[in-house]
Amino acid sequence: MSKFMNLARKFNCFYFNGKCDLQHCRPFLVCGKQVGIMQAKVVEAACRYPDVFQMDSSGMVSMHPSLTTYEERSARINHVLTQWREERLFVTLKGWRNECYEVRTGFADPPLLKMDRSAACLFGVRQYGVEINGYTHHPQLGMSIWLQRRALSKPTWPGKWDNMVAGGLSVGHSVLDTALKEAEEEASIPAHLLANLRSAGSVSFYFESERGLFPNTEFVYDLELPADFVPHNSDGEVDLFELVPVKQVMERIFTPEYKATSCPTTLDFLIRHGFINSDNEPRLPELVELLHIPLHYLYSQSSSGKSPISPN
Amino acid sequence: MSKFMNLARKFNCFYFNGKCDLQHCRPFLVCGKQVGIMQAKVVEAACRYPDVFQMDSSGMVSMHPSLTTYEERSARINHVLTQWREERLFVTLKGWRNECYEVRTGFADPPLLKMDRSAACLFGVRQYGVEINGYTHHPQLGMSIWLQRRALSKPTWPGKWDNMVAGGLSVGHSVLDTALKEAEEEASIPAHLLANLRSAGSVSFYFESERGLFPNTEFVYDLELPADFVPHNSDGEVDLFELVPVKQVMERIFTPEYKATSCPTTLDFLIRHGFINSDNEPRLPELVELLHIPLHYLYSQSSSGKSPISPN
Repeated sequence: MSKFMNLARKFNCFYFNGKCDLQHCRPFLVCGKQVGIMQAKVVEAACRYPDVFQMDSSGMVSMHPSLTTYEERSARINHVLTQWREERLFVTLKGWRNECYEVRTGFADPPLLKMDRSAACLFGVRQYGVEINGYTHHPQLGMSIWLQRRALSKPTWPGKWDNMVAGGLSVGHSVLDTALKEAEEEASIPAHLLANLRSAGSVSFYFESERGLFPNTEFVYDLELPADFVPHNSDGEVDLFELVPVKQVMERIFTPEYKATSCPTTLDFLIRHGFINSDNEPRLPELVELLHIPLHYLYSQSSSGKSPISPN
Repeated sequence: MSKFMNLARKFNCFYFNGKCDLQHCRPFLVCGKQVGIMQAKVVEAACRYPDVFQMDSSGMVSMHPSLTTYEERSARINHVLTQWREERLFVTLKGWRNECYEVRTGFADPPLLKMDRSAACLFGVRQYGVEINGYTHHPQLGMSIWLQRRALSKPTWPGKWDNMVAGGLSVGHSVLDTALKEAEEEASIPAHLLANLRSAGSVSFYFESERGLFPNTEFVYDLELPADFVPHNSDGEVDLFELVPVKQVMERIFTPEYKATSCPTTLDFLIRHGFINSDNEPRLPELVELLHIPLHYLYSQSSSGKSPISPN
């Protein structure tokens, strides 16, 4: 197996571990629609709150139907999470963020409840972000990509190499607005250069760590920059920026110093721009498929049954 | 549901029809590895040849293990297909091509047998091709894409609009070689312009028609052309070429005059170049996932059991 395929197995470790079936996990539904996946240890803890979580005979866990509003659901989940946090039940809650995440059925649907960001991975809630590949055709280095090293103070992946700009989607901001805002805050990119920002699709993958489940989708943007432009950070979240020739990027992504969950966007860039192709990756179609795994399908359960898509 | 999502359901109609499970279909294995998917009517016909096809208790159909060589397997399949053709059992065999298709486990693996091209869809054998998006930044029309109208004499999709260059992979040619050869034969693109040809990834989708199953993978290339270059056909397979502004392409793909199985490559181009984005397609990530459905997973059965990937 090639190095690229191995990497794709790493950031898709939950997809590959053979444990995303009903024996090991339960779909988590709110208002009759799936919003998450819960591992056995979380289901076990949730069983203690029968007025918050309802287990049904088909193996799904639902937010109790008596909780009919966004506010009620958010308050009850917060109560549960606060208890779990006091009991030190889950390692991810040690990193309580005091910043809430809105839980929705689909990306464009209205929010059903909110929970602390650190708990999203306990419920396997889908997370969406934007990432910008900043690149330049450098006269000496050739095609090169701007990478950031994340600040040591970041709660997740401190000190790791990452794509030039990356940020989670937040309520009230469109995808493009988020990309523009993050580009300004993280890399101080001026408006006239941001005019070149180009939407280039998205990547979907399913990572797992000791903290929980990460069914992630990143909206991907490309930004070609003049060779003499140097990004600098203005919000303290970035340690430094480095312009790295493509050839070196293709080595650095395999090191433990590269944020594993940022590799899909980097690989997608390298594939779209022809640097990874059928000559250096004989299993190119499989690699491309693994950058876009069917999260839409893994999250398609509803209380009226499975949607009519059936890969099996 | 958006027009783009509807289109993605059309070219993925087999993926969405809820019939790719063991109740309706059987994995087809050769030498212990899955190479295809057989629908019930094909399984029924195959049962008449117990010395060629073996049904096992787990619901899989295997080429009989007594057929140990490429030549034996190819000869026996050809014998069966010839009988089916005489009996007019399957409509696709009316279009017998007298051109063989090599059946492999994976794209880069050695061939296990060959069969007439018209029969590949009966056994749901994965098919690989190359497609080239030819485009130009035209001074008057703006960003525009060269489309071809297929010759009326083509055995499949005659007279339909298609991407500038498209062709199946053939034995002994690499993916890039096939792209270069087809670009020269189909569109007479000179070598100095082909120097700009850029690999841009691949698309995977699962189409079904009255002829059979089409689990297709296209290797995608982009080729930027000078505004004054006009392709012309030299092998009689193309009726005409037209330079179509992106805005019009985004209308034409929805018409029945556009070859349904060419839409994935066109959509992928429009997404990678920012024309379809999160502003005009709220479900962009799902659309992108549907351009790269997990064929690697749907074709991962082996006689020793399912590979350890389990989306369900």
